[in-house]
Amino acid sequence: MSVESPARISAPTLLVSEWLARFDDALQTRDAQQVSALFGEECYWRDLIAFTWNIATFEGLDAIGAMLHKTLDRVQPTGWQIEGEATESKGVVQAWLAFETAIGRGKAHVRLTDGRCWTFFTALRELKGFEEKRGSTREAGAEHGAIRGRRTWTDQRQSDAESMGYTEQPYCLIVGGGQGGLGLGARLKRLGVPALIIDRNERPGDAWRNRYKSLCLHDPVWYDHLPYLPFPEHWPIYTPKDKMGDWLEAYCTLMELNYWAKTVCRSATFDEASQTWTVQVERDGQPVSLRPTHLVLATGMSGVPNLPSYPGMDRFKGVQHHSSTHPGGEGFAGKRCVVVGSNNSAHDIAADLWEHGAEVTMLQRSPTLVVRAESQARNRTLYSEDALKAGISTDLADLTVASIPYRLVPQFQIPITAQLRRDDAAFYDRLEAAGFMLNFGEDESGLTPMYLRRGSGYYIDVGASELIADGRIALKPGAVIDHLTEDAVVLKDGTVLPADLVVYATGYGSMTGWAAALISTEVADTVGPCWGLGSDTLKDPGPWEGELRNMWKPTRQTHLWFHGGNLAQSRHYSLYLGLQLKARYEGIATPVYGMPSA
Amino acid sequence: MSVESPARISAPTLLVSEWLARFDDALQTRDAQQVSALFGEECYWRDLIAFTWNIATFEGLDAIGAMLHKTLDRVQPTGWQIEGEATESKGVVQAWLAFETAIGRGKAHVRLTDGRCWTFFTALRELKGFEEKRGSTREAGAEHGAIRGRRTWTDQRQSDAESMGYTEQPYCLIVGGGQGGLGLGARLKRLGVPALIIDRNERPGDAWRNRYKSLCLHDPVWYDHLPYLPFPEHWPIYTPKDKMGDWLEAYCTLMELNYWAKTVCRSATFDEASQTWTVQVERDGQPVSLRPTHLVLATGMSGVPNLPSYPGMDRFKGVQHHSSTHPGGEGFAGKRCVVVGSNNSAHDIAADLWEHGAEVTMLQRSPTLVVRAESQARNRTLYSEDALKAGISTDLADLTVASIPYRLVPQFQIPITAQLRRDDAAFYDRLEAAGFMLNFGEDESGLTPMYLRRGSGYYIDVGASELIADGRIALKPGAVIDHLTEDAVVLKDGTVLPADLVVYATGYGSMTGWAAALISTEVADTVGPCWGLGSDTLKDPGPWEGELRNMWKPTRQTHLWFHGGNLAQSRHYSLYLGLQLKARYEGIATPVYGMPSA
Repeated sequence: MSVESPARISAPTLLVSEWLARFDDALQTRDAQQVSALFGEECYWRDLIAFTWNIATFEGLDAIGAMLHKTLDRVQPTGWQIEGEATESKGVVQAWLAFETAIGRGKAHVRLTDGRCWTFFTALRELKGFEEKRGSTREAGAEHGAIRGRRTWTDQRQSDAESMGYTEQPYCLIVGGGQGGLGLGARLKRLGVPALIIDRNERPGDAWRNRYKSLCLHDPVWYDHLPYLPFPEHWPIYTPKDKMGDWLEAYCTLMELNYWAKTVCRSATFDEASQTWTVQVERDGQPVSLRPTHLVLATGMSGVPNLPSYPGMDRFKGVQHHSSTHPGGEGFAGKRCVVVGSNNSAHDIAADLWEHGAEVTMLQRSPTLVVRAESQARNRTLYSEDALKAGISTDLADLTVASIPYRLVPQFQIPITAQLRRDDAAFYDRLEAAGFMLNFGEDESGLTPMYLRRGSGYYIDVGASELIADGRIALKPGAVIDHLTEDAVVLKDGTVLPADLVVYATGYGSMTGWAAALISTEVADTVGPCWGLGSDTLKDPGPWEGELRNMWKPTRQTHLWFHGGNLAQSRHYSLYLGLQLKARYEGIATPVYGMPSA
Repeated sequence: MSVESPARISAPTLLVSEWLARFDDALQTRDAQQVSALFGEECYWRDLIAFTWNIATFEGLDAIGAMLHKTLDRVQPTGWQIEGEATESKGVVQAWLAFETAIGRGKAHVRLTDGRCWTFFTALRELKGFEEKRGSTREAGAEHGAIRGRRTWTDQRQSDAESMGYTEQPYCLIVGGGQGGLGLGARLKRLGVPALIIDRNERPGDAWRNRYKSLCLHDPVWYDHLPYLPFPEHWPIYTPKDKMGDWLEAYCTLMELNYWAKTVCRSATFDEASQTWTVQVERDGQPVSLRPTHLVLATGMSGVPNLPSYPGMDRFKGVQHHSSTHPGGEGFAGKRCVVVGSNNSAHDIAADLWEHGAEVTMLQRSPTLVVRAESQARNRTLYSEDALKAGISTDLADLTVASIPYRLVPQFQIPITAQLRRDDAAFYDRLEAAGFMLNFGEDESGLTPMYLRRGSGYYIDVGASELIADGRIALKPGAVIDHLTEDAVVLKDGTVLPADLVVYATGYGSMTGWAAALISTEVADTVGPCWGLGSDTLKDPGPWEGELRNMWKPTRQTHLWFHGGNLAQSRHYSLYLGLQLKARYEGIATPVYGMPSA
C-alpha cells in the first residue's frame, strides 16, 4: 500500500483497514460504545494468552466488553496492522493482523460480515526482550577468541544434564516424554526455561515403538510436524510407528533436552508456602526428590486405561489385556480372538490379528464414527502440499484452525461431513450391510467435533472397515458382555464366543486421572475433568466452556498444567504453554482473566 | 511473460530470450557456425553430467564445439526456458535456465557479455522415470488395506539392514561414514540404489567427536547443510564438533542408511570379467567379503596423515603425535608444547593448549593464509540470512558457485581478497609485527582458490591469531627442524626448544593415498592425484585440468570413485555422483566425454 497507488488497495483490505482504525481508536479511548458498534450481534473473541493470560473464548458483546474492561489498561494493545491482503468469500471478509501489547507481540485474525466483526482472534506470539534466537539472531555456537578455562558446548551440555534434578532444580517438570512432552520441552529450551522431562520408557520414542506392529500415524505428515524441526520433504505421508519413535529420539538429542528415561513419578505434592512442588520419582530404580516450580502432566490426552470388569475374567485361561498393552498379532495365527470395542485401536488390532491369520470377532458396543483416512486427509486442505504451494505454512494453518471459535466448529463441519458421506456412500452402505452401527455425531458434524468433545468414538479407516464389510472380521453389533468362562466370552443375548485372546479396546479415562493417581483425588477434583468443550453431547457434559477444559492453560490447582492432544495441537499449543511458563519464570505479571468457576 | 503485456519483459530477459532461441535453434540444427556466433571469444562451458556424463569445463570455442559435436546426437537437449527474470550487472547479463535431455531434466545458467555467451553451465538434475519422491509424490508410509503377511516398515528396514552385505550385495560400497559418506548414502537411498557405508568408528559422527575438544565448524551454518535434512533455524552459526556428531548420527538413522560402524576396509580388488569389486572388510572383528559393483572412497579429502621424519624422534621421551590423533589440551597445563605447522589444525591445537594453560610454541614452516572467520562468513553472501530472504536457497547458492568456471575463480576472488585485507589491515599488521609470515595466494586470490588448488595452506581464524599477535603463543617463523633430543626440538638455526609435547600438524596426503593403501599402488598410479586444478601453483602442479581432479566423477579406474570436500561441496556434488551411480544401476548408457588422458 502506498500513497501513490491507492487504487491498488483491494476492497476487502480497505474494509478491514477502516474497521481496524476504528477498532484501534475504540480500544485506545476505552470507548465501549464504539467497540459495540464494531461487532455484530453474533460475535466471538478467542484469545490465546494475549489479553487474558488464559485460553478463552468470549461469546457475545457483553462477554467481550467485560473482558476488555478488565484487561485493556494492563494489556495496552497498539500497532494494529493488516498482514498481507484481506480476502472475501461468501460475504465473509477476513484478514491477518499484527499487534503489540505492553509486554509482547501478537498475531490476530478478524472475520467481518456486513462490515462488523463476527470472529476475532488474538494470540501472543513472543515476549519482548525474550524473543527466541533464530535466523539472523541465532547463537554463535563457537565462542571465538582465546579463553582460558573455556567451557565447550559439550562441557556445558554435560554439566547441565548432570546437575539438572540434583544440584539444580528444573523450573518446570514435564511428566511424560512422548510427542507432547518433547515438543513442550523444546519450546522451553528455546525460551531458556530450565526444564526436565521424565518418562517411564527405556528410550524416547518408545511410547510409539511399544505399540502394535502395524501402527502408523492416522494423520498425514503435513499435520504432524513437531516444533522447530519439520519432517523433511521425502517423509512418508503416514509415518510408521517405529520411524516416529526414531524421529522423537533424534529430536530429544538434537533439541538438547534434559530427559530422564526409565523414570516413574511416584507422588507429587504442592507446597503453598514455597509455591513449589515436591515430586518423588524413581530414576532407573533410584529414588530422586525433585522440587520444580511448575508441574506439567503430558501423560497423553488418553489418560489411564479403562479396563472393564466382567464376571469370570479371573477364570478366563486365554490371554486378555487392554489395547494399550497389546503386543500385536504375531503368534495368534489360527487363534480365536475377541476384540471388545470399535474405535481406532479396536479396528487396528482386529485388522492386525486378521493379517496374522487369526479368527477375529469385534464386539461393537455402540455406534461408531468411521472416516476413511484418505477422505479425512483430503478434507484437511490447510495441511497439504497444495496449501504449502499457496503459501500456507504449517504455522499459518495452525493459526487458521485456532481462529475459529469452538462454538462455530460444528457448523463449519456439518456440510463437510455431509459431502464426505455422499462421496463415500458406497463404502458406508457396505459397512451398514454388514451390521456396523454408524454414527456421525449427534449433530452430524463428523470427526473434528467428536474428537474435541470426547476424544473417542471414531475410527479413521486404514483398511479394517473392508474386512468388516466383507465378513473377514466377524462383527457383533450392539454386543453386551455378560461374563467370561474359562475359554469363551458370553454375551447377554446368550451368544458364546470361544476365545483364546480377548483384547479390551475400551479406551482411556480423562487426563485428570493422572492427577488423581500422581497427586491426589482432592487436586484432581479441584481441577475437574480435562478435555471436552461442555457441549452437552454424549461423554461431554455441560456447561459450555467454549475451550478444551484445562488444556495448555491455568488450572484451578496453582502451578499444575496439562499438555497433550494430537501432534498438531501439541505443536501449536506448546507455544502458548511455553510462553505462560516463560512469563512466570521471568517474573512478568500474568493475571489470569476468565478462570472457569469451581 | 504474456502476449498482452510485452512491456513487462525486462531488457535483460529479452536479451537472454533471444539468445536462447538462437542457441536452441543452433543445437537442433547442429549448426556449428551459428553456435560459434553465439559465444564470445573468451568462453566457457561447464557441464555437470548433463552433456558429458563427466564433470568437465570446456574453455574456448574449439573445445565447446568438439564437445557438442560428440554429444549432441545422444543428449538431444530441448525445452530451453528462462527461469525467473534475467539480471544485469556491470555489463554481464545472467539468467537461470531449464532444459531437458533425452534421459533427464537439467538446470543451466548463462552469462552474456555484449550479447554473446561468456560462461555457460549445465547440470543434470534428475533422470526421467527415476525422479526422487518428495512433496506430493512422497511415499504413503502406511500401506492401507488388509494384507495377510504384511511386512511393516520395521520388518523391511530390519531385513534390509540384516541382509545387506551378506545375502544381498550393495550396488555401491562407500568407504568412510563422515559427512561425505552419509550425504552420498542418503542420495543413493532416495534414488533407490542399494548402498552400504562402512566406517572404522564406533558410532556415526565419531570422526567429529574424536577430534580436539574445542573444535567447531569454521564455516557458518548456512554453508553446512546436509542433503534433505537442513539444520533448523535456531542451529548455531558455528556448530560445535560433538553437536555435529549428534546431527550426523541422527541423520544416519533418520535417512535409513545401511551403515556398518566399527568396520575397517582391508583390501579391494576389481575383477574385470565380472566388473565387480571384492572388498575384504572386518566388521567388529569379523571378516566379511563384499562384492559391490561400485566402490566410493569417502575417506576425507585430507587423505592419509603426513607424519614427518626427523632424526631423534625415536629418542624423544615426551608425547608426540600427528594432529589427527591429538586428544586436546587437557592435562598439558604448564607443559612445554611445540606445534609443528601453521594451518587450521596447528592454530586450533595451539590455542586449545594455551587455553588449558600450556606454554605453546608454533613452528611456522612457510607463509600461511589467514582469514578471520567473521570476515570469511561476511564474504559468503550467497550463504546467509540475507540470501535466504532474497530467495536464494542453499541449492541455488550451490548452483551459482558451480556456474563459475574454475579458471575465472581467481579473478572473481582477487578484489574480494584485496577488500578483506583493507578491512582487516590492523589485524594483519599485528600478525606481521609478531613475525607471522602471511600469504594470500601466489596471485593474491585468497582462500577459495588456495582451497581448490591444494586444500591446505590456510587458517580460518577463530581466535588463535590474537594469541600469536600478542605473543601468548610463541612463534618461530621460518622454522626448520634439525632433530629431536630426549626432551627438546632443535632447529637448524641452533634454537633448542625444550618440549613435553610435540604435535605434528603437518597435513595429509592426497586422497589417492587411500586408493594406494586399500587397493594397490598400480590403481593409485592409474587414477593419479585427487583434488587440485592443475593451476601450476605451489602444491598444485599442472597441466591445467579445469576441474578438481578425480572428484565426484569417473576416474581411470573403472567403478572407482572419490567423494569428499567441505560440507557444501559434499552436499552439492553428492547429487551428481548419486545420479551417475543411479544411471549405471538402471542400465542407462553413460558414455563419458572428456576423460583426462592418462
